[in-house]
Amino acid sequence: MEQIESIKEFGGHLNRYTHDSESCQCPMTFSVYLPPQAADGPVPALYWFSGLTCTDDNFRVKAGAQRYAAEEGIALVIPDTSPRGEGVPDEPDRYDLGQGAGFYVNATRSPWDRNYRMYDYVTRELPALVEAHLPLVPGVRSVSGHSMGGHGALIVALKNPGMFRSVSAFAPICNPVESGWGKTCFGTYLGDEKSAWEAYDATCLIDSGARAPEILIDQGTADEFLKAGQLQPQYLQAACERAGQPLTLRMQDGYDHSYHFIATFLGEHIARHAKALRQGG
Amino acid sequence: MEQIESIKEFGGHLNRYTHDSESCQCPMTFSVYLPPQAADGPVPALYWFSGLTCTDDNFRVKAGAQRYAAEEGIALVIPDTSPRGEGVPDEPDRYDLGQGAGFYVNATRSPWDRNYRMYDYVTRELPALVEAHLPLVPGVRSVSGHSMGGHGALIVALKNPGMFRSVSAFAPICNPVESGWGKTCFGTYLGDEKSAWEAYDATCLIDSGARAPEILIDQGTADEFLKAGQLQPQYLQAACERAGQPLTLRMQDGYDHSYHFIATFLGEHIARHAKALRQGG
Repeated sequence: MEQIESIKEFGGHLNRYTHDSESCQCPMTFSVYLPPQAADGPVPALYWFSGLTCTDDNFRVKAGAQRYAAEEGIALVIPDTSPRGEGVPDEPDRYDLGQGAGFYVNATRSPWDRNYRMYDYVTRELPALVEAHLPLVPGVRSVSGHSMGGHGALIVALKNPGMFRSVSAFAPICNPVESGWGKTCFGTYLGDEKSAWEAYDATCLIDSGARAPEILIDQGTADEFLKAGQLQPQYLQAACERAGQPLTLRMQDGYDHSYHFIATFLGEHIARHAKALRQGG
Repeated sequence: MEQIESIKEFGGHLNRYTHDSESCQCPMTFSVYLPPQAADGPVPALYWFSGLTCTDDNFRVKAGAQRYAAEEGIALVIPDTSPRGEGVPDEPDRYDLGQGAGFYVNATRSPWDRNYRMYDYVTRELPALVEAHLPLVPGVRSVSGHSMGGHGALIVALKNPGMFRSVSAFAPICNPVESGWGKTCFGTYLGDEKSAWEAYDATCLIDSGARAPEILIDQGTADEFLKAGQLQPQYLQAACERAGQPLTLRMQDGYDHSYHFIATFLGEHIARHAKALRQGG
């Protein structure tokens, strides 16, 4: 793992790294914000999973997160959203498939199965890597994300009990097996077998008995992708009610799908994650 | 003036407008963040002037300013950095001349003199326009900016006593007649006469007797353009000492020229502007 950039911000450092990923079989880039407190010893970490088309750069530039992380003394770990590079399969004319659209699954269909193993990457390889090389408290993690990354945050928390102390999401794809985006990517990466899809779908996972710490979701009512049926928080809400999974779903009046929406409510999410990270530690 | 976008953020609205500019003889785009308090009546405004290559979008996406503006109940008025469009002269291979590099002057040399009148635009046309059409308290304004826009903020405050209640800058070009960027643009837009350049140079203006409210400047010590001699805060500082112009120049250890640096210290700037805007009102 090689550090390729370090920018001082709010007294800490926003660093960028590359490494040869075993999961993804290609070089991967990610960012970590280390708050000023990390100079005195290891700090807990909030993982952030971004949405379609994003790299590690969008969140660190647009969300205003570093201010809160510095105040709370927590690190931000920000992976890319897919494998990338010349040898990596892609659909260059599509924003919602291929590079930039890894959907946080382990692909099983050729040619995607060689590189598109983002689930292993974000749940195994990346945490082990950053906890071995950076001043992070091993195993003390929370997770959040946006849209496709909100889906990612929900499924990694549901599929790995105890791995994350808290979980939240902004406008997540709550039931990808029922959304256009999800059907496209799951069909391409996972094939036709519906049970393979359901293993990466938050709503299906809850119906199958998976549980997570109380889930916090913010969803804007003016979100064009909500209207288009891509996100479907009502299906997740119904599953949580059926299962007794704690969920706080906040429909935020007039907010859209953009980082301006995320920025507005991110401070509340980070405060909640920081509390869970402190209590658990 | 036509509203072309409105995004809800921190309870207020981030709006974008276009209008046919008389000063610049072309359509101009700008953004205004109206805080939630603007729903109940007019609010004061902080003008933000951006740096080379920027449009109105950079600051509104990268600085984290809207959170502070919502807390303080002030509007943000964010113009573009130059005239733009097909009929507007440009040097497409250069980032530091032509479109995106208006330098906040009124050009006098052909072919630039038709459109490149950003000084008139930001000091006359834009304030009159937004104060006529938006819930802003007329005449209650502060100004700040970054790099080329920091230069712009300093000169509009120095050249227009009473127009702005407070002024600050991030890594401003303090003495453009002595910087490579400034010499290129001033020579191109204003011709060879040095006195024409000095009328748009903060250090020269202070030496000539111009005064502003106490100036606050943050400058990162790891700023590559500081090292390259483009910014030269020490010349401005010397002029302020000679003249008795109040200046707080803070050299911020290890910070660079990026929006991560701006984001780190912007809250302090906005709190200071908000205090001046309230006291004066």
